[in-house]
Amino acid sequence: MKIVIAGFGTVGQGFAEVLLKRRELLVDRYGHVPAVVAVIDSRTVVRDRQGLDLSAVLACKKETGCVGTEKYTDPIKVLDSLDYNLLVEVTPTDLKTGGAGLVNITHALESGKDVITVNKGPLALQFSRLIGLAKEHGCKFRFEGSVGGAMPIINLCHENLVGERITSVRGIFNGTCNYILSKMDNGQPFDQALKEAQQMGYAETDPTNDIEGWDTAAKVVILANSVFHRNVTIRDVNITGISTITPDAIALAASHNMVIRLIGEVSDTKLEVSPRLVPRGHPLSIGGTLNVAQIDADFAGPITITGRGAGRIETASAILSDLIAIMNIRDKGEGKHA
Amino acid sequence: MKIVIAGFGTVGQGFAEVLLKRRELLVDRYGHVPAVVAVIDSRTVVRDRQGLDLSAVLACKKETGCVGTEKYTDPIKVLDSLDYNLLVEVTPTDLKTGGAGLVNITHALESGKDVITVNKGPLALQFSRLIGLAKEHGCKFRFEGSVGGAMPIINLCHENLVGERITSVRGIFNGTCNYILSKMDNGQPFDQALKEAQQMGYAETDPTNDIEGWDTAAKVVILANSVFHRNVTIRDVNITGISTITPDAIALAASHNMVIRLIGEVSDTKLEVSPRLVPRGHPLSIGGTLNVAQIDADFAGPITITGRGAGRIETASAILSDLIAIMNIRDKGEGKHA
Repeated sequence: MKIVIAGFGTVGQGFAEVLLKRRELLVDRYGHVPAVVAVIDSRTVVRDRQGLDLSAVLACKKETGCVGTEKYTDPIKVLDSLDYNLLVEVTPTDLKTGGAGLVNITHALESGKDVITVNKGPLALQFSRLIGLAKEHGCKFRFEGSVGGAMPIINLCHENLVGERITSVRGIFNGTCNYILSKMDNGQPFDQALKEAQQMGYAETDPTNDIEGWDTAAKVVILANSVFHRNVTIRDVNITGISTITPDAIALAASHNMVIRLIGEVSDTKLEVSPRLVPRGHPLSIGGTLNVAQIDADFAGPITITGRGAGRIETASAILSDLIAIMNIRDKGEGKHA
Repeated sequence: MKIVIAGFGTVGQGFAEVLLKRRELLVDRYGHVPAVVAVIDSRTVVRDRQGLDLSAVLACKKETGCVGTEKYTDPIKVLDSLDYNLLVEVTPTDLKTGGAGLVNITHALESGKDVITVNKGPLALQFSRLIGLAKEHGCKFRFEGSVGGAMPIINLCHENLVGERITSVRGIFNGTCNYILSKMDNGQPFDQALKEAQQMGYAETDPTNDIEGWDTAAKVVILANSVFHRNVTIRDVNITGISTITPDAIALAASHNMVIRLIGEVSDTKLEVSPRLVPRGHPLSIGGTLNVAQIDADFAGPITITGRGAGRIETASAILSDLIAIMNIRDKGEGKHA
């Protein structure tokens, strides 16, 4: 297995760290660690056919801001020059155009490479086309970390609940909004809660994607397409964010023993992101930066799962689970079970 | 795929119903429904090499109390007379000897057959030996429904969290006890709460296995062996049940904003079932008959999952997910993903 990592920001670096930390487990189970034959950041590429020393790549990125000294202009030419089987695509998300991620994923699938991504832009804009390309070219295409970070949801629906008819998925898929709303529960006004989220590093300098509900909408679209086999894009979602929620609204909710949470909901007919009243004590009333999903399945009934929705190592852990799933299929045709 | 169902009580009948209801999905995805070539209950067997009409078997069981008219004395001779690939073992649980389940599972694995079970007795008493047999004979051996019913936990740890080091699993694995403790939260004494649980059909006439913590202990052992790769039996668990919990203890807990829950905990070193104080609002403070598990993983952090821990169709749904996983491996070497 020869891997190319495209994008070496927080998640890309987290994935490199995770691979280093899981050396032993991977050698134990597969007799080898998959080789990372190239890492591409926004301006440079570093390559080694025998497999890079990821510690050195991480150190170089930290010291110089770049993964290497070889500059490039066309990432497609770089990909074409490499001998690899699997692309880990973790360039920055662009929910408007799909950005570099859309170009890279498309090219990799068309070249018959397996792809793992957590990049929501391409998935929220062109899911059906990408899945079609994967099928056409016999590629594995996985994206567990794109929704809910370390909280298993996509593979949970596809694999653990494979015999179920899932009728709806409802949840909190944006930790930043949930952090802000939890702070507002304690009496803080929106602006102050947002500022605190930014200081804590939970919200970006431009928080629009989070607070206007776009990030949640992208995740809802990914669930709609992958779990419900719909053919929708982010433009089809009814989106209301949290920026207009007042302390009065929070207080009124509290007087009815309720909280306000930004809920994404998807079913065969629904596709919505909106602030909703949730009774205190309900699984969807959780506070802080956690993510939660409530899955309604016809035989199993409701299943609720909670976990860390973001974070360098947490998101990288989801990529690792996708990687091992692909290794199991490619290497042996089976999983860890007896 | 030719299936034999051993045991045709609640869960066995539920599995037959689930197979009937999922005809379409299975045909859609695999081009055929796996044939059930025999059903064995405690006294009779019904068989058809071409595959039984499960509706007729269900009707016969309902009308006559038996699946057929062919009586048998030795179940092993029955199994040996059948041409099959997979045993669904759902005879009644016996936590002391392993019962018929242990005999059936051992024989099936030794004959090179795949096995799916929810029968806790054999798993709690002879896990390592059975896993060893499965490996030795190249059989698949799955048991998702044995812990937490429809709540995914074993396959979640093995597959979704395959790259994690899981450091502990802690949870509520017995809905009967949780129902009783929830009722006690509202002021009922233990005896009255137990009686109500029996009237509701949640507790058996002899409730010892549930209230003395044996059922939870069996599940903790299954998790210890399968998730933590330990080699333990139910005799190694420190078990305290809930029968001595007084209304005073519940009231004292409540005055500190806590509830008492029967928690099973397993890690590399722990193996315990005991009533514990849990803060209200904590994921493990849930009421009613639900099951919940909190998994601590080194990269992903804490992951909590909640679902129905029992029920005819719910448990059968877990068997179906194991069945489809085995069909994917046997038929095509891969899952549902692109």
